Amino acid sequence: MATLGLTCVHLCAGLMGRRAASSLRSLRCVSGMTVSQIDEEVAKLLELKAQLGGDDGKQTFVLKTAKGTRDYNPKQMAIREKVFNTIVSCFKRHGAETIDTPVFELKETLTGKYGEDSKLIYDLKDQGGELLSLRYDLTVPFARYLAMNKITNIKRYHIAKVYRRDNPAMTRGRYREFYQCDFDIAGQYDPMIPDAECLKIVYEILSELDLGDFHIKVNDRRILDGMFAVCGVPDEKFRTICSTVDKLDKMLWEDVKNEMVKEKGLTEEAADQIGEYVSMQGGMDLAERLLHDPKLSQSKQACAGLTDMKQLFSYLQLFQITDKVVFDLSLARGLDYYTGVIYEAVLCQTLQAPTPAPAEQNGAVSGEEGGVSVGSVAGGGRYDGLVGMFDPKGRKVPCVGVSIGIERIFSIMEQKAELSAEKVRTTETQVLVASAQKNLLEERLRLTAELWNAGIKAELLYKKNPKLLTQLQHCEETGIPLVAILGEQELKDGVVKVRNVATREEVDVSRAELVEEIKKRTSES
Amino acid sequence: MATLGLTCVHLCAGLMGRRAASSLRSLRCVSGMTVSQIDEEVAKLLELKAQLGGDDGKQTFVLKTAKGTRDYNPKQMAIREKVFNTIVSCFKRHGAETIDTPVFELKETLTGKYGEDSKLIYDLKDQGGELLSLRYDLTVPFARYLAMNKITNIKRYHIAKVYRRDNPAMTRGRYREFYQCDFDIAGQYDPMIPDAECLKIVYEILSELDLGDFHIKVNDRRILDGMFAVCGVPDEKFRTICSTVDKLDKMLWEDVKNEMVKEKGLTEEAADQIGEYVSMQGGMDLAERLLHDPKLSQSKQACAGLTDMKQLFSYLQLFQITDKVVFDLSLARGLDYYTGVIYEAVLCQTLQAPTPAPAEQNGAVSGEEGGVSVGSVAGGGRYDGLVGMFDPKGRKVPCVGVSIGIERIFSIMEQKAELSAEKVRTTETQVLVASAQKNLLEERLRLTAELWNAGIKAELLYKKNPKLLTQLQHCEETGIPLVAILGEQELKDGVVKVRNVATREEVDVSRAELVEEIKKRTSES
Repeated sequence: MATLGLTCVHLCAGLMGRRAASSLRSLRCVSGMTVSQIDEEVAKLLELKAQLGGDDGKQTFVLKTAKGTRDYNPKQMAIREKVFNTIVSCFKRHGAETIDTPVFELKETLTGKYGEDSKLIYDLKDQGGELLSLRYDLTVPFARYLAMNKITNIKRYHIAKVYRRDNPAMTRGRYREFYQCDFDIAGQYDPMIPDAECLKIVYEILSELDLGDFHIKVNDRRILDGMFAVCGVPDEKFRTICSTVDKLDKMLWEDVKNEMVKEKGLTEEAADQIGEYVSMQGGMDLAERLLHDPKLSQSKQACAGLTDMKQLFSYLQLFQITDKVVFDLSLARGLDYYTGVIYEAVLCQTLQAPTPAPAEQNGAVSGEEGGVSVGSVAGGGRYDGLVGMFDPKGRKVPCVGVSIGIERIFSIMEQKAELSAEKVRTTETQVLVASAQKNLLEERLRLTAELWNAGIKAELLYKKNPKLLTQLQHCEETGIPLVAILGEQELKDGVVKVRNVATREEVDVSRAELVEEIKKRTSES
Repeated sequence: MATLGLTCVHLCAGLMGRRAASSLRSLRCVSGMTVSQIDEEVAKLLELKAQLGGDDGKQTFVLKTAKGTRDYNPKQMAIREKVFNTIVSCFKRHGAETIDTPVFELKETLTGKYGEDSKLIYDLKDQGGELLSLRYDLTVPFARYLAMNKITNIKRYHIAKVYRRDNPAMTRGRYREFYQCDFDIAGQYDPMIPDAECLKIVYEILSELDLGDFHIKVNDRRILDGMFAVCGVPDEKFRTICSTVDKLDKMLWEDVKNEMVKEKGLTEEAADQIGEYVSMQGGMDLAERLLHDPKLSQSKQACAGLTDMKQLFSYLQLFQITDKVVFDLSLARGLDYYTGVIYEAVLCQTLQAPTPAPAEQNGAVSGEEGGVSVGSVAGGGRYDGLVGMFDPKGRKVPCVGVSIGIERIFSIMEQKAELSAEKVRTTETQVLVASAQKNLLEERLRLTAELWNAGIKAELLYKKNPKLLTQLQHCEETGIPLVAILGEQELKDGVVKVRNVATREEVDVSRAELVEEIKKRTSES
């Protein structure tokens, strides 16, 4: 067994204990620099203490994952694989390629891209060399990738984990480490065609995953900015007021208004005018009407956004997806980098509390309208300026994309599986090679290898002499449909007894025909 | 467009420049604490400078990925997907489930598991809260997962990126961020059965990937420890001498001996005795012979290892893979946690230098024996103590596993693709919806949506009026096999002209039969 490396030299101080450590910590305010040295020492000592173990001499590792993160067990992985397959199939159906970028970027690559959310970025410790941060999304690394490789057009998807030091709400599927599934179209194209395809993709994925009813809110940053302008918001407050509007899906208008006026110093009059606009919802008709709105039509920006909105809806009609799409002036999206169309898909369903529901309530996920919203499950928009921020000559590459909020989808799918009668299989094993008598390990190993070499998914128990019952139970538990049973007689006759686990039927199959027989039987199911 | 956030307040100091920063850096020796403060300020200033731009007023972002990391472009991703599919198929054929763990762990989870390599762990910055580190491998998180969930048996694979602050050698496929593909069997079983399956898996994967000739070295930590004991190595030096022996694949024996004697203080006599053993290679016969070696047989540990080695080879014979497996006493493996059998697979081929080879040299990867070894492409072993290190009561779960060195395999596959005539497709698009005349965007959108809804992988160009030639060129470039061409006449006749891009043949297909026709034609290829 490996020995624990004791790297810390201050052994005597190891007796200090947590009380002392915590009082050291309270010195933090005295001097910034000394305290960081103390913190480091404290960390070393506590680590040492953990290695040495508690009073009973046992190790006192804290057995947990980092705050806001989780392991995926095999059942969760089986569900995750299914969801990913649906999403990737859709991306591929739309002709996308895929790329991958490192989990960390140079810190400066991420700086200044996320507005108020930048404080949530995870930094790596400076261990000498470059200053690095974990990626916060996949969009900024994508823009860096385009600029670095001078790519002017690409349609790509990227599925990977991103990191945010946010307050986790894990029962609602909000984690500090979570997957993003992004699809983006970069390139100079005619207006609204790629934008419409992004919405079509959201529609296809949410329909195929069968998560219940949903709708997709659409707006445009130019319409928002035009609205702020005509309502009298000073230019320099556009982004911060936009962040406040973005909270409308979680907060009441009264509270949003309060934040605008009391925290952000907007006049009450301006806030009230904004309040009127952000209550508007509709479709192409609303875009048409607002183009003639006496106030909003004063803004060139707003008019450009509204004209594009009309164009977008005409394409969505061709795609036959307008039944789920709403032009909603309250949609703002938090991130700084959007420049045009923005959108967000929301499920209209109740999400179960973590405690199990009464048995009679069939289904954690109710599809009825009027259910409590679980929040956004997809979002995105146009960001025509981001790539230019990375290009040494400021060359722009217009981009539009969508990110699928996969973690919330996982949570819902897991709850569905939990309540479903169907058992989730975590392996794909087709056959267990079993023996009915003792001393047949070598024969089992030989046959299993034959099956593996023929491409059959096969297992055997790693015991010299397992009981037949134990072997059959393993099949029941893990859902293996077939057993290939070897015995003295079968070996003599050159056959294998093939047992159907569900029906308990058994037939002798000649060794030469076994592979074909297994393939035939398992392709049916 | 998003604005750059200027967070640093020392604006005046922004003029200092890199020279001044570097002389500040040279103060490092004066006082540890002040210098770290200075470093932080310097980093802020340089970042600010980068944001403000250079003398020409342009931004001077460093457009690069972090040292030792890389992006994967679509072509590399297509190759990666193919390799992963082969590997995952093999793992599933052997009945494995899969799990996933977070990219970072509590720092203390990783502490004391990697011996001398612990210095290569990436730590996250202390931003308040837990101290975290990026995972160094998938084995320690797996052990933590087992202990935390009290799992006593599982057969799982895990494919994910791991992080090591090593000196990158990227032309040889060595990175600071790299994938590991791990397969492990945990549980109390009869000896050597799961161990033999791990070797079978390595054999299957390396054969299927068609990387040229390879061999798998096998040894046992107990044999090594027994050998050290009988050669007179003091107990406390076992691990460090083991690390030195591990360098035999990269260093000459003379240099290894030098390190043992001069750096690690071993007697010359002991080193020479080790030298004799570590030159031995063989199969079951060697294990048998060493069981009767007058010196080595004095060690109980060595005898246990040798007996198991014989058993292992008997199972490998049943699996018919002994042609590639060598019992090699010089194999040591660096990691601390191994307790029994260890193994490593090595390709017997030359790896091309990064500059392209002369055209007449057919194939970067030569399969001849005697080529320069590219080093290990898979490795693993038995680690029966690791889970117990995490369990509060020290309960052990015996484990054995293997890790596929996928990055080197990618490098080789990329070079092969580079030299192959066959073009790597990066999308799976079956058909491009094109138009022969102007003003048909709406018809193209409608038809494309029809195809998407029928599960066909379809694209259209995002232009209102693209030229037919441009549309056909897009197919040639990206390998799309079919074009569905719409024109006034076709619309009138209720047909679509289907063009085979390779043969340039065109036929009219009725709209109702289009989906079936496309499916038929693309299932053939």
